[in-house]
Parts: sequence; C-alpha cells; structure tokens
Amino acid sequence: MHKIVFLRHGQSIWNMENRFTGWVDVALSDKGKQEAKKAGLALKEAGFDFDISFSSYLKRAIKTLWIVLEEMDLSWLPVNLTWQLNERHYGALQGLNKAETIKKYGEEQVHLWRRSFAIAPPLINEASPYYPKRDARYTKKNTTDLTSNSSYEIADKLPLGESLKDTTARVIPFWKNNIVPQIKANKSVLLVAHGNSLRALIKTIDKISDDEISELNIPTGTPLIYELDAKLQTIKHYYL
Amino acid sequence: MHKIVFLRHGQSIWNMENRFTGWVDVALSDKGKQEAKKAGLALKEAGFDFDISFSSYLKRAIKTLWIVLEEMDLSWLPVNLTWQLNERHYGALQGLNKAETIKKYGEEQVHLWRRSFAIAPPLINEASPYYPKRDARYTKKNTTDLTSNSSYEIADKLPLGESLKDTTARVIPFWKNNIVPQIKANKSVLLVAHGNSLRALIKTIDKISDDEISELNIPTGTPLIYELDAKLQTIKHYYL
Repeated sequence: MHKIVFLRHGQSIWNMENRFTGWVDVALSDKGKQEAKKAGLALKEAGFDFDISFSSYLKRAIKTLWIVLEEMDLSWLPVNLTWQLNERHYGALQGLNKAETIKKYGEEQVHLWRRSFAIAPPLINEASPYYPKRDARYTKKNTTDLTSNSSYEIADKLPLGESLKDTTARVIPFWKNNIVPQIKANKSVLLVAHGNSLRALIKTIDKISDDEISELNIPTGTPLIYELDAKLQTIKHYYL
Repeated sequence: MHKIVFLRHGQSIWNMENRFTGWVDVALSDKGKQEAKKAGLALKEAGFDFDISFSSYLKRAIKTLWIVLEEMDLSWLPVNLTWQLNERHYGALQGLNKAETIKKYGEEQVHLWRRSFAIAPPLINEASPYYPKRDARYTKKNTTDLTSNSSYEIADKLPLGESLKDTTARVIPFWKNNIVPQIKANKSVLLVAHGNSLRALIKTIDKISDDEISELNIPTGTPLIYELDAKLQTIKHYYL
C-alpha cells in the first residue's frame, strides 16, 4: 500500500480578493501561512514522514511547502520544483477580479471559462506584466527541474492560457514520469500544488469524468491523503 | 569576472548560548532571522541576482537561505543541499557550553580544539542523541545531493568529530566538483554555510596558512562577496 499526500497551498492574497490568479506569483495571506502551519502540525501529529517533495514554481505553493517542512523538522527534505504543477494558466483573465470579469465578458462566458473542461480563456498578451516567457524562473536553466535540461525547451512549452484539459495535459506526464516512479520505489511523497493542478491529478487517479471534475473543490491548506494499491488504484482518500 | 556570495547563517539559539553546535540541528534565534532578512534586502538593493544556491543540511543555514530567497523574490531558485557544507563536526563536545568544556578538559586543551588547524575533538559516541549515522537526512537517498547516489556511500563518509583540516578535506572536493563548474559556466552562485565550512573555502580561495586561518572570523548573516578572475583568483572581497 502506498500513501501520497496532496496539499493545496494556503490562502493567497488574491484568493482573499477573489481575483483570477493563475500563474501570477501572489504571496500567501497571513491566514494562508497559518493554514500551512496547521497542515504541518497535523501531518507531524499523525506520524507522517516524507522522502521527497514536489511543488510548483509559484511562491504560494513553495512557501506552503517550506512552512510544512519546518513544522515537521524536515527542512532538509529534497524539494523538486516544476512549472508542470503550476496552477492552470488563466490567460488574459489573470489579475481581474471575478466581478470585473463578469462585467466585461458576461456571466455565461465566465461560467464556461471557470467550469467547463475544455474551454480556454483568452490568451495572455506579450504586453502583459505576467507574460511567462520573460520570467527568469521559466527561462533560466533550472537544475532542479527534473523534466528538462534546456531552458529553451521549457519556454516553448509554456502555456499562455489554459483550459483544465490543457492543464491536465501537462500535469499528467509529469506525474507519470517523475512522481509515479518515486511512489513505486516506496518513497513517501508530499506534493504541494494548486486547485486546478490537483484537480487534474485527482481526475486521473480517480477517473472522474470531464463533466464532474469541475464540481471537485479542494480546500486550501488541508492535507489530502491518498492510499493507493500496488497498481496505484485508490483504496481510500481523506482529508487530515 | 565572476562573483560569488558567501553567507554564514544568522545567529542560532546555541550561538547565543555559547554552546558547541557542530552538526546539532539548532534553529535560528529571532535575531538570526532578522539578520537573514537584512541580508536578503541588502542583496536585493545592491542588485544581486542568482542562478543557483547551495546550503548545508542544517536548518539554521537552510532557513537563512529561505529567508534571503523570499526577500529577493527568488523562492523558486534551485537549492542544492549537501552535508559537505555542514559546520565542522564538533564530536563529543557538541551540546556542551564553552565554560563547561573548559572546566572538564582545561583551558589549554579547549583552546587547541577551537583554534588549531589539525587537532580533532574527541569523537562522538554512538550513544549520543546527535550521532549522525542515525539521522534520516544523511541516511536516506537524497535526490538533491549532487555528490552521491547512494545513502550507504554517504553514511560511510560521515564524520564523528573533525579538526578544521578534516572539514576542509570534505568541503573542498564539493567546491571543486560542484560549485566551481557553476561559476565557470557564468552562473551566479549564493552559498549559505557555517563559520568553519566557510573558513575552509576562504582558506583555499585566498591561500591562507594553517596558522592564520583560525584568526578569520566571519560574522553571521552578512553577505560576503568574492570577485574572482577567470582563473578564480580573488580580485577583491567585501562584506555587503
């Protein structure tokens, strides 16, 4: 039996302000830091231990991971960062609050962007301050990125706006190539990510349909434990 | 011209209490956290940027690094941890305060242990809570350790008490094999370590004699910039 712990980052400042965040590198709110601390303590008290950890390149996830590791006295744990665990890229909607977006595009359209599986938002423009191909973290050669040795290779793959289907298409290869081998080697894995990159993972693990997945809401800062059998089928899952 | 930034961790709780720390995993004091924050802000204001970072496996160094990265908005930076940057292992003296040690072993002997280059302290005993070969961070296979793929290989090499000469003998191969290639590839390196692992590095870079090196005191939490020429000879060095 394998156990993996998924954790959505603690509340960010923009979660609080109800803005489309996506790849914008927003910090945790004070509440988010408290959630992370509580998650770390809960994992420690429940006797969890880890061999390896994964996170996105976004600081709300990285900081959540750091706080958890510190609470568990595991600051030294190997940390692997990848853009493939980043939040769904929200394209041109990034930075807008949800009310503004409804005013601009209409309620029906916004609902489709938020809740459909395959409809992508308008792509981000090169003029945007959030244009990812100018961001050093994605363009520098990154020695902890397990998936690529070339920054050019990464830059070509960077999304400019994604549906949940698009997000799934880059989360799952990373899962299969980099995380599943760790689980099969009996490593205990902690994975900190985002609402939609976690939806993509759970959709795949639990074979949830395209229609149903948008109903799955994963709370911030709450460890989600998956117990998997030898074939990585779910035995059970629960929040700590 | 190359630049590398060395940083001794901020004040730890045992620095404050004047106890022999070595490999004991003591946390930063509040003052130490403030020093780290100040170091990060100073580096940011001076326009430093980094491609890669290195630290020991000890949380006072890791936490210092995390605080600096957070202040510089570089949480995503690749972090490489290694036991070879750990503090000098203080053997059986670890945990004793300096006054207790003098009472037990005499002032002259303690002075020799602290200030000679080649005299090692009494080795740590297997019964000690600080015995390193039982510590998961050194015995688990660690995927971010650049120097070894085998946990057994690491465990065999772990010191049980070191002179500064012994510390130098494990710091310098890591420097040559893992950090120098980064510098030569024009990567901007941030290295967070300890009083004695930094002494070992600076002794080698600046060709300081065995007698003189013990006089070099590196302050906690203060970035030390080395400008090196193409042959990695020091052009100048200064504290920020």
